[in-house]
Amino acid sequence: HKRILVTGGAGFIGSHLVDRLMEDGNEVIVVDSLFTGKKDNFAKWRLHPRFEFFRHDVTEPFNAEIDHIYHLACPASPVHYKYNAIKTIKTNVLGTMHMLGLAKRTGARFLLASTSEVYGDPEVHPQTEDYWGNVNPIGVRSCYDEGKRVSETLAFDYNRQHGVEIRVVRIFNTYGPRMVLNDGRVVSNFVGQAIRGDPLTIYGDGLQTRSFCYVSDLVDGMVRMMNQDSFLGPINMGNPGEFTMKELAEIIKELVNPKLDIKYLPATPDDPMKRKPDISKAKNFLGWEPKIALRDGLVPMVEDFKKRILGAP
Amino acid sequence: HKRILVTGGAGFIGSHLVDRLMEDGNEVIVVDSLFTGKKDNFAKWRLHPRFEFFRHDVTEPFNAEIDHIYHLACPASPVHYKYNAIKTIKTNVLGTMHMLGLAKRTGARFLLASTSEVYGDPEVHPQTEDYWGNVNPIGVRSCYDEGKRVSETLAFDYNRQHGVEIRVVRIFNTYGPRMVLNDGRVVSNFVGQAIRGDPLTIYGDGLQTRSFCYVSDLVDGMVRMMNQDSFLGPINMGNPGEFTMKELAEIIKELVNPKLDIKYLPATPDDPMKRKPDISKAKNFLGWEPKIALRDGLVPMVEDFKKRILGAP
Ligand SMILES: NC(=O)c1ccc[n+]([C@@H]2O[C@H](COP(=O)([O-])OP(=O)(O)OC[C@H]3O[C@@H](n4cnc5c(N)ncnc54)[C@H](O)[C@@H]3O)[C@@H](O)[C@H]2O)c1
Ligand SMILES: NC(=O)c1ccc[n+]([C@@H]2O[C@H](COP(=O)([O-])OP(=O)(O)OC[C@H]3O[C@@H](n4cnc5c(N)ncnc54)[C@H](O)[C@@H]3O)[C@@H](O)[C@H]2O)c1
Ligand SMILES: O=c1ccn([C@@H]2O[C@H](COP(=O)(O)OP(=O)(O)O)[C@@H](O)[C@H]2O)c(=O)[nH]1
Ligand SMILES: O=c1ccn([C@@H]2O[C@H](COP(=O)(O)OP(=O)(O)O)[C@@H](O)[C@H]2O)c(=O)[nH]1
Ligand SMILES: O=c1ccn([C@@H]2O[C@H](COP(=O)(O)OP(=O)(O)O)[C@@H](O)[C@H]2O)c(=O)[nH]1
Ligand SMILES: O=c1ccn([C@@H]2O[C@H](COP(=O)(O)OP(=O)(O)O)[C@@H](O)[C@H]2O)c(=O)[nH]1
Repeated sequence: HKRILVTGGAGFIGSHLVDRLMEDGNEVIVVDSLFTGKKDNFAKWRLHPRFEFFRHDVTEPFNAEIDHIYHLACPASPVHYKYNAIKTIKTNVLGTMHMLGLAKRTGARFLLASTSEVYGDPEVHPQTEDYWGNVNPIGVRSCYDEGKRVSETLAFDYNRQHGVEIRVVRIFNTYGPRMVLNDGRVVSNFVGQAIRGDPLTIYGDGLQTRSFCYVSDLVDGMVRMMNQDSFLGPINMGNPGEFTMKELAEIIKELVNPKLDIKYLPATPDDPMKRKPDISKAKNFLGWEPKIALRDGLVPMVEDFKKRILGAP
Repeated sequence: HKRILVTGGAGFIGSHLVDRLMEDGNEVIVVDSLFTGKKDNFAKWRLHPRFEFFRHDVTEPFNAEIDHIYHLACPASPVHYKYNAIKTIKTNVLGTMHMLGLAKRTGARFLLASTSEVYGDPEVHPQTEDYWGNVNPIGVRSCYDEGKRVSETLAFDYNRQHGVEIRVVRIFNTYGPRMVLNDGRVVSNFVGQAIRGDPLTIYGDGLQTRSFCYVSDLVDGMVRMMNQDSFLGPINMGNPGEFTMKELAEIIKELVNPKLDIKYLPATPDDPMKRKPDISKAKNFLGWEPKIALRDGLVPMVEDFKKRILGAP
């Protein structure tokens, strides 16, 4: 059992990771500014003796004596990371630097929650980890994409220069209960619309495809990556199953209300037609692959969104 | 006449820029940590009433009341930027952030000395400014390449978010007097070898091409870019004339000592075959193009290297 720091532990993925680490018997410290995260997300652990929460911004240094750091603190959806782009870069760069400084001092192992967005608008499908990406350095999304790329650079440089034990995970689209309600992502939009009885909004012709990983699958992969001794990454984690937005809309209609309308809106400019991870590395090195099918993972998510949108029953 | 801050003003390009700005009658403040820069480079201005030097590291905040900031502080050659890769990223990210914070507070205009390395190992020749680049995010050169990319991101975000007046120049290989002697770059290697009477070392077959801009041409372009009101950049600045390393060696032999030997050494791994700027934008927007031919620019450089290597005559 370990002393584990989870930055961003009040957020969507972070709070599921906290559940898992607590259930495994670890001591868990959550550091979160509550920018998008909520205390509700770890309500069940608040009084547990192995749990602690600090309201702290990772752009400031942080001290603790710990064994593992899962570094997730960062706004994750365009609506939130564009809200204050400079703050997003500071969170990425200073946040990652402080956590690597902490890892260096304590000898802790450090896992970075990176993203498929380091590949930008990829020219290679599916993306393997050795693809260098196609990223605009000066656009409105660069604060996130370049911020995460330089976080990876920092991680590898702390490894090469100070021997910090790093693990870098490139996360692809993930969904599940506790997703931020108004993050504008397709799954939370559709589920929210379905519950409110509104038409599902498809941007463009709906033939573009995406891959969606259920959050418990991802958390399992992150924990496996942290707990192996031989491989730094970067490693892709996501679900390679592809769905068109039309198919996703149909599944959600079936689950929530088959009578819902679908409204076609203009396509988003530069919307990629396709995004899908190559997870051969995760399979080979960690024996990991996602287990939860989209139709199954949407059930608990719909339940959670119903509670949050309609109030307790 | 303006109050102008030049970070990296004790370095190669910075000190030539200082000469130009002083000659134009401005008040000039140099901020430099003297990591690779030397006080000798601005010796002639030290007692001038319009000149000031601060030994200061841009990874720490800096305050002054100024009108223009030329931000050049950053180790520029692989041997120096790899020496402490983490420090290189900090210099890029924190340094640029501090100077943009200063620009925001004072309303100063801010010019970033970016680099052709933001294009990485380009798949497009010659490179235009809208090319997004092909950069390895986790390699040993990433501290520089990704550091400069995120510096550009920061600049554009301070412009969009706070209206800071930014100018971004992507500098291609530049040469001239005061280049760092042992920076391992081809021009300083050949000139140094020629002066010492050593054989000129060509890596590979010598048929790879590069483009070399004389430093006064570059400085003129930077000043033009700063002093126009309509265009933020990024803008390429370099000399589009292409030379093979064999041709460069022959020119330097002719200039210094025609009897010198050439020694062929193994090629550097991943050495690009070609690198050449597209400067249409600089021509159209600034009416700028380089004027000094390679053979002419090498003359004062050889003279300067002779003094520094052999001592005063
Ligand atoms: N959800 C996905 O599909 C996805 C995909 C790729 C990568 N990721 C990465 O996973 C991580 C978690 O994402 P998420 O989906 O759980 O998002 P989220 O917004 O639910 O969680 C992010 C958490 O970080 C906190 N945070 C933000 N800035 C902070 C700061 N400066 N200091 C301290 N805390 C701060 C927020 O309050 C929030 O609790 C992020 O790093 C994100 O980039 C997520
Ligand atoms: N020379 C080229 O061909 C070339 C090409 C592309 C871009 N550039 C850029 O132009 C700028 C100047 O390059 P140069 O060729 O004159 O190199 P240089 O090494 O001669 O100059 C860099 C200067 O920055 C100073 N410096 C470094 N780190 C600092 C820090 N943390 N705080 C304060 N000062 C610091 C150094 O002491 C030095 O005086 C750099 O930003 C470089 O990336 C140069
Ligand atoms: O327990 C620690 C140790 C370091 N840091 C911060 O991490 C950063 C990087 O630390 P490092 O030791 O690499 O850098 P240095 O202090 O040498 O600049 C610095 O800003 C430190 O303030 C931190 O937040 N907690
Ligand atoms: O209400 C919505 C929100 C998104 N999308 C589409 O769903 C896909 C996934 O969008 P999201 O923003 O969730 O993720 P990303 O594009 O970053 O993978 C894109 O093609 C969007 O245009 C949609 O059809 N309706
Ligand atoms: O005259 C100044 C003003 C700001 N800064 C630094 O520039 C950075 C960015 O400033 P900004 O105002 O954008 O950020 P904030 O202070 O809001 O974090 C901060 O670290 C400041 O310490 C500086 O060095 N000199
Ligand atoms: O002593 C030297 C140093 C460099 N080079 C070659 O010169 C070219 C330019 O190298 P440099 O490092 O100056 O610049 P860059 O490759 O970054 O453009 C490359 O093909 C090098 O392999 C060479 O032949 N001899």
